[in-house]
Amino acid sequence: MSQSTLNEPNNLPETATTAAGKKGRAPSGDHSAGRGRVTALDRGLLKILLHLLGNPPIDVRLWDGVPQGTATNEGGSRVDIRDRHALWKLFYDPSLGFGEGYSDGRIEIHGDLVSLCETVDESMLDHKPRPSLLRRLQAKIRYRGNTLARSKANIHRHYDIGNEFYSMWLDEQMVYTCAYFDDPELSLEAAQAAKMDHVCRKVRLKPGNTVVEAGCGWGALALHMAREYGAKVKAYNISHEQVVYARQRAEREGLSQQVEFIEEDWRKVAGEFDAFVSVGMLEHVGPENYRELGQVVSRSLKPHGLGLVHTIGRNYEAPLDAWTSKRIFPGAYPPSLRQMTDLFENSRLSILDVENLRMHYAKTLKHWLERYEEHAESVREMFDDKFVRMWRLYLASSVAAFLAGSLQLFQVTFAHARNNEIPMTREHLYQCAH
Amino acid sequence: MSQSTLNEPNNLPETATTAAGKKGRAPSGDHSAGRGRVTALDRGLLKILLHLLGNPPIDVRLWDGVPQGTATNEGGSRVDIRDRHALWKLFYDPSLGFGEGYSDGRIEIHGDLVSLCETVDESMLDHKPRPSLLRRLQAKIRYRGNTLARSKANIHRHYDIGNEFYSMWLDEQMVYTCAYFDDPELSLEAAQAAKMDHVCRKVRLKPGNTVVEAGCGWGALALHMAREYGAKVKAYNISHEQVVYARQRAEREGLSQQVEFIEEDWRKVAGEFDAFVSVGMLEHVGPENYRELGQVVSRSLKPHGLGLVHTIGRNYEAPLDAWTSKRIFPGAYPPSLRQMTDLFENSRLSILDVENLRMHYAKTLKHWLERYEEHAESVREMFDDKFVRMWRLYLASSVAAFLAGSLQLFQVTFAHARNNEIPMTREHLYQCAH
Repeated sequence: MSQSTLNEPNNLPETATTAAGKKGRAPSGDHSAGRGRVTALDRGLLKILLHLLGNPPIDVRLWDGVPQGTATNEGGSRVDIRDRHALWKLFYDPSLGFGEGYSDGRIEIHGDLVSLCETVDESMLDHKPRPSLLRRLQAKIRYRGNTLARSKANIHRHYDIGNEFYSMWLDEQMVYTCAYFDDPELSLEAAQAAKMDHVCRKVRLKPGNTVVEAGCGWGALALHMAREYGAKVKAYNISHEQVVYARQRAEREGLSQQVEFIEEDWRKVAGEFDAFVSVGMLEHVGPENYRELGQVVSRSLKPHGLGLVHTIGRNYEAPLDAWTSKRIFPGAYPPSLRQMTDLFENSRLSILDVENLRMHYAKTLKHWLERYEEHAESVREMFDDKFVRMWRLYLASSVAAFLAGSLQLFQVTFAHARNNEIPMTREHLYQCAH
Repeated sequence: MSQSTLNEPNNLPETATTAAGKKGRAPSGDHSAGRGRVTALDRGLLKILLHLLGNPPIDVRLWDGVPQGTATNEGGSRVDIRDRHALWKLFYDPSLGFGEGYSDGRIEIHGDLVSLCETVDESMLDHKPRPSLLRRLQAKIRYRGNTLARSKANIHRHYDIGNEFYSMWLDEQMVYTCAYFDDPELSLEAAQAAKMDHVCRKVRLKPGNTVVEAGCGWGALALHMAREYGAKVKAYNISHEQVVYARQRAEREGLSQQVEFIEEDWRKVAGEFDAFVSVGMLEHVGPENYRELGQVVSRSLKPHGLGLVHTIGRNYEAPLDAWTSKRIFPGAYPPSLRQMTDLFENSRLSILDVENLRMHYAKTLKHWLERYEEHAESVREMFDDKFVRMWRLYLASSVAAFLAGSLQLFQVTFAHARNNEIPMTREHLYQCAH
């Protein structure tokens, strides 16, 4: 399946093009081209760069191998910048430069990639809690809204890389969102099931309830709601590969009567339901569309229905980092709670409950990274070394972002403003209640 | 005590001045002055007014007793507008006009005041979810920020009316904020204790913990934290009468060593604490000061401390209604969650949990209203009939506002953005955990 994907050019991850394409450089290969001896200017640029990052305590070396960072390598991880080209790109745009440099093998990391990213994130947050005006402008210029058409292209880029690829490192249910470790010892599989139950309890799902799900991934939650709670679910998704996969699962499980997977955009949601759920889609909607989404939610929720939106977010407004939004999640944007309120405050919806599951996502991503590394070889065969390094960086830097607090995970439960039959307490969410 | 208050002119509720003062009209008395026959213009004005309110299904009559509303009085409540003066004030500013008219006895309500207010609130929300630009402008012009000095005057106006007065209708602990009915059968006393425990659990209060409370009312929560959880509390409040009362209680209970009541503004909070709590103060802070409050919170919370802010709020931005902010709560403003984020997003704080307790406040206010009515006679003796009607309207219209969803109650739990020792789940908040 992933093969057929790779044959259509615009399904091809850009990075793969580069790697397979013109330069055809073996990522970790020789970069003598841009190398030459290290000049005072090179060292000066690096010094300024480290200063802009708040001088994180890391050991950084240029291609002459001389320690330049504020820390020498005592157990900590080490960064080697292997040629001038990588250094200058890093200087021009640290996020993009680091991502590209690491993927190309022009930047090499010795030691733990996660703790390195965490150290840098924390240093940046301490030094400068918000991105500079320049970076925000860059991001504004790069960010193109998620129109109906562009959404499809963006989602296609990420989610249609191939189910086979994702199945190598996600849990067996293929849940690609934050899990819920209500017991720290849970396996990833159990924690994903716990998350789905947590969501179902938050919307008080009962047998025979109707649910609309906006952005259903590979269908795990929709099927869970039907199988475990006897709900009738309409699940929307614009990723062709995911919908095909989800339908096959529904068939296999004999749930096709209860769950309908619809290859359509959230804007096309029709009908009235007892519950509205959206887990991990808002990141792809874009703040410019929250009001419209709010109207869709409001018109599709019955007067006494409950809704839930689960999304990666932030403590403050800031764009997704340049590299991730260029190479991994085009069009993605993690909102602050302030931005999220656009979804509710303009549609007569009332926020009942917000839960921040940040540490659960750090844990989830650690599981994914571990499984990913176990399959690194198969990924290399399927794509190439650059792709392997690119996705390793994405997963590792995401663990770091949740640990450092530059990303959050918000679960927001809501109802119509006029609904007075809302639950009085949240005790029903917890084990004791079952 | 209330007497001594009433002797100092600027402690005197404005309304009492009016009643005691120049006009000296007996509220429910004769208003023949502005009466005369009902003209076509009078009926026209009323028609327009009712239209602007979304034509609520109520029975309204002018001083000729002829039904004018969209509903005739079948079990529902009836509004009598007893003179032209009241009608024109109502037309010019419905909120202020109704409040003043009802207090003066120029507007009389037959039937249930709460359900009348609820019907009107709902009709207005359905007809026009947000106040008109004109009303918002009026409110902007009237609203004067809560500077250090003005805060003191505003708080004085409301909270220094007299402890004796509040003791007549609050629970025996004198808790003047939303209670928590985790069991619907709880008495007001028990529900206030449950609320205080809920707050203590949300900040994971442990013996020996230090707490700073911003806005401590008559001291119930501070004393509860010391007595039940062995915490050391610094409690700030700018209401002189409340602080005096709270100190006496601490003495009586032998908790003066554990709880220090400080007659100071939240801006003066000093020191670092394991917990920051503020229950029912944010309403008096004003959105223009949230950033500053956020900085105070951030500097007074230890790296692994937890904070909680409990406040009346809204689903959308709108000023407090004109009458309440003129007669009851000068300078008060119920924020939307969007506005509240100013407190957190600029101080590197991370929102962990938001709980909306709207229905709990409706229930709390019903208890207060019931007790208030039982003591209406004593209130009349202490003040006058106008004061009795004014506070009845305030309590009844507040029940209605929470039932209709024009007001919310938000409890927000937060921590420093870099705190990774935050609770993984919220199960510890619920009975099962104890």
